[in-house]
Amino acid sequence: MLTIRAATIADAALLRRMIWELADFEKEPDEVLTTEADIARDGFGEAPQFRALIAEWQGQPAGYALYFGYYSTWRGAGLYLEDLFVRPDFRGRGIGGALLARVARTAEQENRLFIKWEVLNWNQPAIDMYKALGADFMDEWRSVFLTGDGLRRLAEKAS
Amino acid sequence: MLTIRAATIADAALLRRMIWELADFEKEPDEVLTTEADIARDGFGEAPQFRALIAEWQGQPAGYALYFGYYSTWRGAGLYLEDLFVRPDFRGRGIGGALLARVARTAEQENRLFIKWEVLNWNQPAIDMYKALGADFMDEWRSVFLTGDGLRRLAEKAS
Repeated sequence: MLTIRAATIADAALLRRMIWELADFEKEPDEVLTTEADIARDGFGEAPQFRALIAEWQGQPAGYALYFGYYSTWRGAGLYLEDLFVRPDFRGRGIGGALLARVARTAEQENRLFIKWEVLNWNQPAIDMYKALGADFMDEWRSVFLTGDGLRRLAEKAS
Repeated sequence: MLTIRAATIADAALLRRMIWELADFEKEPDEVLTTEADIARDGFGEAPQFRALIAEWQGQPAGYALYFGYYSTWRGAGLYLEDLFVRPDFRGRGIGGALLARVARTAEQENRLFIKWEVLNWNQPAIDMYKALGADFMDEWRSVFLTGDGLRRLAEKAS
């Protein structure tokens, strides 16, 4: 009943819709600035910047995982899981775990030694699932983000 | 007195040494599993997985920045700054800021809209510097890491 397949450019609109659904779940629906055209170009154009998997339940799009390469100077090559999402109507069927398992298998096939990702601190069901898998929580680290005017001002200072 | 240049394969040993010095500063010196050969292959081989900058003060290696592409489904393409390090003898001269400014300029030149990184929650001088630049701290998010047996067990479950 569950199938998982690699996303193609034909999935750009579906991915963009589910990206928005995930942002809405994360209470940040207005933060999605990417368009369907961005997703098509950035994922499936000349220089792909991510890969994605689509989960289908009886032919219906039920969720997705989106990931790309990451490099740890301590560990070496790994994968970064930017998004993992199961639509509300399809939860409780192991779809999130199945998507994550496929990402893990890809990591192993490519000799990538880890998967890294982030979870919202109030998303207890996800945290419980990740703990059950044996994941480590790097709670000594704070995530930092520089964009917009701050990034432009800093770039102007470059020698 | 300060010069910043792109690292080449001839810098693999120097990079590996400074990666260890950074891990030692972060109180995790035993966590560095990568070798000089790994850094040479992964950064400067057929499929480079990162880029690095070397800072030199009067010809002496003073620090480095190491980064690669990142993709945010909300924002689009950006850069991930894995490491930013200034050797203790060279601190207080603006070298960290100069390295970060060069990464910001690269982001702008490549139409990458942000830089993302992590900082240890006890590294107050770094936190203060990032706040002064206008960076955002994403403190609602926890960083998760799956490797070793947990990753292998999960990969085996893939359908």
